[in-house]
Amino acid sequence: MLAIEQTDPEDPRSLTWAEAPTPRPTTGEVLVKVAATAVNRADLLQAAGHYPPPAGESAILGLECGGVIAEVPADGSAGDWAVGEEVLCLLAGGGYAEYAAVPAGQLMRPPAGLPMTEAVSLVEVACTVWSNLVMTAGLRAGETVLIHGGAGGIGTFAIQLCRALGATVATTAGGPAKVARCRELGADIAIDYREEDFAEVLADHGGADVILDIIGAKYLDRNIRALAPDGRLVIIGMQGGVKGELNIARLLAKRGSVTATGLRYRDRADKARIVAATAAGAWPLVESGAIRPSVHRVMDIREAAAAHDLLDSGEVSGKLVLTIGGA
Amino acid sequence: MLAIEQTDPEDPRSLTWAEAPTPRPTTGEVLVKVAATAVNRADLLQAAGHYPPPAGESAILGLECGGVIAEVPADGSAGDWAVGEEVLCLLAGGGYAEYAAVPAGQLMRPPAGLPMTEAVSLVEVACTVWSNLVMTAGLRAGETVLIHGGAGGIGTFAIQLCRALGATVATTAGGPAKVARCRELGADIAIDYREEDFAEVLADHGGADVILDIIGAKYLDRNIRALAPDGRLVIIGMQGGVKGELNIARLLAKRGSVTATGLRYRDRADKARIVAATAAGAWPLVESGAIRPSVHRVMDIREAAAAHDLLDSGEVSGKLVLTIGGA
Repeated sequence: MLAIEQTDPEDPRSLTWAEAPTPRPTTGEVLVKVAATAVNRADLLQAAGHYPPPAGESAILGLECGGVIAEVPADGSAGDWAVGEEVLCLLAGGGYAEYAAVPAGQLMRPPAGLPMTEAVSLVEVACTVWSNLVMTAGLRAGETVLIHGGAGGIGTFAIQLCRALGATVATTAGGPAKVARCRELGADIAIDYREEDFAEVLADHGGADVILDIIGAKYLDRNIRALAPDGRLVIIGMQGGVKGELNIARLLAKRGSVTATGLRYRDRADKARIVAATAAGAWPLVESGAIRPSVHRVMDIREAAAAHDLLDSGEVSGKLVLTIGGA
Repeated sequence: MLAIEQTDPEDPRSLTWAEAPTPRPTTGEVLVKVAATAVNRADLLQAAGHYPPPAGESAILGLECGGVIAEVPADGSAGDWAVGEEVLCLLAGGGYAEYAAVPAGQLMRPPAGLPMTEAVSLVEVACTVWSNLVMTAGLRAGETVLIHGGAGGIGTFAIQLCRALGATVATTAGGPAKVARCRELGADIAIDYREEDFAEVLADHGGADVILDIIGAKYLDRNIRALAPDGRLVIIGMQGGVKGELNIARLLAKRGSVTATGLRYRDRADKARIVAATAAGAWPLVESGAIRPSVHRVMDIREAAAAHDLLDSGEVSGKLVLTIGGA
């Protein structure tokens, strides 16, 4: 098959579309012919040498894909999935390729009514947002949630999901265009972090019951200031650094929690649990129109390096989708 | 009535047994004639000016007591509690006194078969340990729990409770006598923190699924090193300082959480929920003998200052109980 190969480990942009061995599904896996994948910040980190795939998983980039099942195991270990079915896939790696071997628990039927280029853009963000906000933080209707990076791939999905779940939604974003985008998606409180201190704004609104953070150290203290009593901070990215000072007294006064978590290194049983919950909880909201995919641009897989540059530029609102074979 | 009065706000040991107004129960409260109370580290902090009572609550020391109901509200707002019933009480303050006004939700029937001087020693520790390990951290049978300060009031209870719940119990304590006490109470792994690095010991045992911490900043990084994947660190004390460096990458690699919490400032509904769950979950284990009270010494309430000195010395294993009227 063809797949994206990083020809120079020192050069994160040396991404070429080249021959690679077609993956061989093992027990419980199906082979998917990939029609589209999408770019995640984790792919940029992996290309830069910072985010290795879990042991035993594909070393090819790509954490999500959509396509058609090309092969199922003869022993029935993948359940009742059938050749020819259209699927979305949460991957530990391997989406930037013509074929991917996917554990059955990480397959989802796509929400009805969307082209694959839009549906594929939802996989990682939906699983990330659902697992963190609903399953980990236990977000409830009537609570206030603060979403950092509201105009990004995760943010655009999270704003819409939290609105649909009945939460009051606060967001941060950089600059008037992104702030306007957050408002358009349904944010009740849209903060331009270049102009305002989000911790002060949230304090004026009684604090955030839940915060979804992609910044890490740089925001740690302000996030804790922004929490409401019994508030839950969930950190899923560290774009602002790794080590921060934690004021435990401030956290204790609010009976707050800090959870740092990710999808990629979870075991397959855990991923299957998340994928099933996400499809059951979020896809109906996509089908009803309460959540719309936010695709910044669709590009060809051969443009992977340019797509990485674009995401790195900070000028992307929503997701970058890569099509394979002109899907 | 008589109660402990701190005559000099600058002198935490100026505790005298003196006349004070008898509290007037308000809606939903009963009046309890106190037979015994017990000393918590929080009382030492409050006497030192660091831990004020919540707004509207008694300024008198004492976060737990046991005694007999002396008065119930005529309007039935305290439910079916009756004058003459023996009760244990979780207090926001006011236990170092002859009488305390107690919200009905913070009353418990004592576990059967214990003298009041032993039963009263269980209230704060049981509510603290049950709410943090069971309700907040979700400790499950088969998991490994690390309890810091295993020979202290909270520790001695927590070791026994966690054993009874089917967890593997690791503890820290200072010096051979306290370590031996932890073993005697059922600790599977008893670490002398003066001799060994607990994070290394726990790492050798696969990490702690749950950690109950009373140290705070000084242990923050080691606690996170000691966590198992999906581990939960619950901080309920800051004897080792308030501000610590949090390595978010290390926490994220384990999908770990840090919660800092306390009982005293929770609202009454929350306390009622905790008190009911604790009595239902923990008292049967006390009645079966699986958990035995750990009383270091019983003293008279007039010796409150000496009891505070004793707790401060670090030479106490278990709880210090203070009797009122020679109970």
